[in-house]
Amino acid sequence: MTAIGIDVGGTKVSAGVVDADGRVLSSARRASPARNVAAIEDTIAELVGELRRDHSEVTAVGVAAAAFIDSSRSTVVFAPNLAWRDVPLRDRLSSRLELPVVLENDANAAAWGEFRFGAGADVDDLLLLTVGTGVGGGIVLGGELIRGARGFAAEVGHMRIEPDGRPCGCGQRGCLEQYASGSALLEVVGRAVRRGDEGATELLAACGDAVGALTGPMVSKAASEGNPVALVALGEVGTWLGEGAATLCAVLDPCVVVVGGGVAEAGEMLLGPMRTAFAAHLTAAAYRPAIEVRAATLGNQAGLIGAADLARTR
Amino acid sequence: MTAIGIDVGGTKVSAGVVDADGRVLSSARRASPARNVAAIEDTIAELVGELRRDHSEVTAVGVAAAAFIDSSRSTVVFAPNLAWRDVPLRDRLSSRLELPVVLENDANAAAWGEFRFGAGADVDDLLLLTVGTGVGGGIVLGGELIRGARGFAAEVGHMRIEPDGRPCGCGQRGCLEQYASGSALLEVVGRAVRRGDEGATELLAACGDAVGALTGPMVSKAASEGNPVALVALGEVGTWLGEGAATLCAVLDPCVVVVGGGVAEAGEMLLGPMRTAFAAHLTAAAYRPAIEVRAATLGNQAGLIGAADLARTR
Repeated sequence: MTAIGIDVGGTKVSAGVVDADGRVLSSARRASPARNVAAIEDTIAELVGELRRDHSEVTAVGVAAAAFIDSSRSTVVFAPNLAWRDVPLRDRLSSRLELPVVLENDANAAAWGEFRFGAGADVDDLLLLTVGTGVGGGIVLGGELIRGARGFAAEVGHMRIEPDGRPCGCGQRGCLEQYASGSALLEVVGRAVRRGDEGATELLAACGDAVGALTGPMVSKAASEGNPVALVALGEVGTWLGEGAATLCAVLDPCVVVVGGGVAEAGEMLLGPMRTAFAAHLTAAAYRPAIEVRAATLGNQAGLIGAADLARTR
Repeated sequence: MTAIGIDVGGTKVSAGVVDADGRVLSSARRASPARNVAAIEDTIAELVGELRRDHSEVTAVGVAAAAFIDSSRSTVVFAPNLAWRDVPLRDRLSSRLELPVVLENDANAAAWGEFRFGAGADVDDLLLLTVGTGVGGGIVLGGELIRGARGFAAEVGHMRIEPDGRPCGCGQRGCLEQYASGSALLEVVGRAVRRGDEGATELLAACGDAVGALTGPMVSKAASEGNPVALVALGEVGTWLGEGAATLCAVLDPCVVVVGGGVAEAGEMLLGPMRTAFAAHLTAAAYRPAIEVRAATLGNQAGLIGAADLARTR
């Protein structure tokens, strides 16, 4: 049995035919028409149509979206970077595609994907942290996705880690994602480059002397070449992530913390400092089995793989 | 069907016969022989024996303890204020009492009690915060108690709310319970009294001029009489609680936050400021149904009522 998984992000829509072992048999992608509700649905329908031409056996469609999904998983309540407000997307797509549709928050879907087929396939309880532009999260406990009463659980990027801290796009201050995201990484690097810290010259060369044009991959590449600004910045972000994960584990007590998202591609340069901070800050560490911090293994396909599996096994 | 619930705390052991509607039909209590493992078991056995004389119909015993209980709920791994270390308490008690025994963390049991029969009886998803000497917590989502992979979930008192904050007994710094507990309340009041803030004189009179002898009930009583030191201190603790609850709700998304424990007996003097801070700090508040903050209704019997119900329905 196969299902189609779709991941609707702010910049692109990715789709894939996924089998019962989580393998992506075929995939496609489009730019995301983020500001146009009807166009997003058209894009999803086109991608499904395209993939079904070679995969008529598909039995369901799972849609993962960077959005708040209601607890019945039928409606997109709100999406920070997409034009959706209270859109009954599941039923609209289902009647249009003539297939069962399952709707899920993208980080939840990614957590499910890593739990079923990825870095957490050997455990029943995991916390996923996705470190990209922001910080997202997904929680699986006892083999079940934790959605909360209204479907809004696991908004871990908006836990407050510092009173009166850095302002966040959500309107609050001190949210984890202002310290431990890709955006935060570029902020830290930008400040160091402007100060002229050792390593600034190489980073300026990499971005054509425009600090605003620095990207996460540029920082990771520089770090892998030993650039001190880049290494220190990844260490700072990793440290905040580890400290945030320690608080989350005091509350959730998973077996493993899985770290995904674009910034996680920096690998041990991020995860090393994260592990150190996590071990130093986990409460009652002496009395509990260790909680492992692992890199995600499904990359940017975790969301669509998880969404497809949720649809297939709905 | 009835069961006996036992709540083993650092200072006393409380027991009750509880029916299927959560009513306590009969109760008893002893001082807690906290430093003596065998004596704690003897005390539990005595209380059960005493209660069974008039209630031979009892079918099970639930034991709630201020301790880390392993995920199989058979062993006390560690208890900060009791002499237990890796004690297979469930099986020891079960063979001694010749009744099925269920073991549970005390705040988890209290959350279960409030969920089944108390302030959360109308919802499927609640977060309990117990504000006593420390801050404990229990989580019910989708009608299930959330225990975590190893049984250590909901240690909400040890979420870090301030980097490099106040030192905590757990060895970390900045833990919520250093800001939002009964101990924190007495610290805040003590500082204000020593400074001679307006209202200090009345509080000094209440404690016989010994600031160290101040108790939570003294502070609550003074606050209810309009004492500004006491009111400001309850407001400060309530504000930290509300801010902490906002982060917990970003992660867990319950329907209601239930506040119990001794300090919660201050009622609206604590809960009012808590609600204000909670509403101001909850992420995405404009896009989600309100999360209610409610006073617990089972008082200090929540743990034994919850433990009895867990045993009865095991």
